[in-house]
Amino acid sequence: MMELGPFRVNADSVTLSRNKYAWNNVANVLFLESPAGVGFSYSNTSSDYITDDVQTAKDSYTFLINWLERFPEYKSRDFYITGESYAGHYVPQLAQLILQNNKITNQTVINLKGIALGNAYVDDETENTGMYDYFWTHAIISDEIHEGIISNCNFTEAGTITDACNNYQSQAFDAKSNIYFYDIYAPLCSQFSNSTPSISEFDPCTENYIAAYLNTPAVQQALHAKPVQWESCNHFIGENWQNMPFSVLPVIKDLMVSGISVWIYSGDTDGRVPVTTTKYSIDKLQPVVKTPWYPWMYDGEVGGYVEEYQNLTFVTIRGAGHFVPSYQPARGLAFFSSFLDGKLP
Amino acid sequence: MMELGPFRVNADSVTLSRNKYAWNNVANVLFLESPAGVGFSYSNTSSDYITDDVQTAKDSYTFLINWLERFPEYKSRDFYITGESYAGHYVPQLAQLILQNNKITNQTVINLKGIALGNAYVDDETENTGMYDYFWTHAIISDEIHEGIISNCNFTEAGTITDACNNYQSQAFDAKSNIYFYDIYAPLCSQFSNSTPSISEFDPCTENYIAAYLNTPAVQQALHAKPVQWESCNHFIGENWQNMPFSVLPVIKDLMVSGISVWIYSGDTDGRVPVTTTKYSIDKLQPVVKTPWYPWMYDGEVGGYVEEYQNLTFVTIRGAGHFVPSYQPARGLAFFSSFLDGKLP
Repeated sequence: MMELGPFRVNADSVTLSRNKYAWNNVANVLFLESPAGVGFSYSNTSSDYITDDVQTAKDSYTFLINWLERFPEYKSRDFYITGESYAGHYVPQLAQLILQNNKITNQTVINLKGIALGNAYVDDETENTGMYDYFWTHAIISDEIHEGIISNCNFTEAGTITDACNNYQSQAFDAKSNIYFYDIYAPLCSQFSNSTPSISEFDPCTENYIAAYLNTPAVQQALHAKPVQWESCNHFIGENWQNMPFSVLPVIKDLMVSGISVWIYSGDTDGRVPVTTTKYSIDKLQPVVKTPWYPWMYDGEVGGYVEEYQNLTFVTIRGAGHFVPSYQPARGLAFFSSFLDGKLP
Repeated sequence: MMELGPFRVNADSVTLSRNKYAWNNVANVLFLESPAGVGFSYSNTSSDYITDDVQTAKDSYTFLINWLERFPEYKSRDFYITGESYAGHYVPQLAQLILQNNKITNQTVINLKGIALGNAYVDDETENTGMYDYFWTHAIISDEIHEGIISNCNFTEAGTITDACNNYQSQAFDAKSNIYFYDIYAPLCSQFSNSTPSISEFDPCTENYIAAYLNTPAVQQALHAKPVQWESCNHFIGENWQNMPFSVLPVIKDLMVSGISVWIYSGDTDGRVPVTTTKYSIDKLQPVVKTPWYPWMYDGEVGGYVEEYQNLTFVTIRGAGHFVPSYQPARGLAFFSSFLDGKLP
């Protein structure tokens, strides 16, 4: 409801508007609140809420198989998975599991054609190096703080985080202050703010409207959801997360040679998992350039930039934050259509 | 009319709107179209249109002296000069001339208290290095193009620009394509565009409205202007410019020790003279940090960032392009008020 869905919740938290750039204009879209405990997804066993990447992939796979058994008319369709942020873990892991199980199952095969990862958290080292470099090059932190991080922080898997490093990281976050982490030029949600917003179409308070809407009993009933306090993030699950791999890049590398199409996209005004992080992650994959960097056009403007590598495509969406289709719905849909078509935008 | 003035021209090119963030809310503002030949400023001798920095400073000084002689009630007032872009040359040079002449004149002394340079072109080397680094860190050009520039281009005063360097520079501009150079996330002016603009308040076609308005005979008459085809840029003057110094940093250095306040400000979404260029220029001045980098607040949001040095203050305006008060009028006025008050924002 915040990003690529067919509806947006209005400021009254009661009525909806159509999103004319919804991704279901070009595909049948299945939304999965994952893992169990997130959103309306649940388990009857509360210990299931202490979970990890592996369990999440298994559960998602089970869900998909059962869903296809229930709606077999979709079994033969091309299947794509997209996700953003921590879905940089979920999506490749699920894709890998699907490909593995497709080989051994004698029942339902999921016709997986491709994955697209947006502003994705895929590697702990680049997550850190890329973020602070982004802060620095976007004039959010000073030369002194950046230099302090470079000199004191070893973000590699073997590295330990020293007090000096922690101190500079704190300074960086203090300097960043309360800018909207997910779109560094966007206004904050504040009913008292008189500032000039830099983003015309996206209402920064939309998360609040969605939460209120999805917690309306009649809405939950209409959705056939279990009555629950719906939240955009389940902090219990986050805080009790088990066994996070340091990097998902090996999984992505496997997928690249598997024959499915692997796209990585990035809104370039996100501070959380910025385009710098994504570029550094791609560098680690050491891909071979196939089509050199060029601007892709949408409606007479530069929608972003593309570089195609052997078995990997990288696309930026200009002027979009972490939630690409929220900030740049038209460019987001143009990118998604290209991805489905398997053609560079 | 596009930036800090009291009026904006509406889309009909005929009527005006009040700019509630006009800088004349906090100061008497004198606008000088400089040098002669630019805008409504003119000379009766066409050879005067072949000019340079030195002549421009002299003419501006003469104008100011004559203006103060005509309006002597302003002689005792504090006097500040601001300008952006190539005014990175004009403003420091004029300030230096004023301070020099103040010492020797036995007539009008200009009570110069400070200067503020916005997204300012002050040094040829940092102008180039900073721009390409900005393109790279903002995902406008690829690693390959950036690496090509780094390896092949010597932008120092002693350097010569090789064919290889030129080739990579062309590639960078091809990659940039037609994004709005002065605000990389802003929409282009196009009446046919359906794209979602990222800047809500600023109309990217405003330059056209202004040109049409200022070329209306009744307007020119009301302004007591000589009838002329008004243009925002005089290309003849630009193309025939004489003797441009490689760097104005020595002049700025002189001013820093003169006792007047020297502020450098930068809208951080400008691609033309980006914040990276400005930071590199400041680095060349090797200033001593007095107040470390911190976010300055306006209306509950981060307005930008500040670092105070010995005799120099650096301020960014978050989410503003080259024309700071156009894109972020409220934050621009907040910065300007601080500058006049001589207090960090």
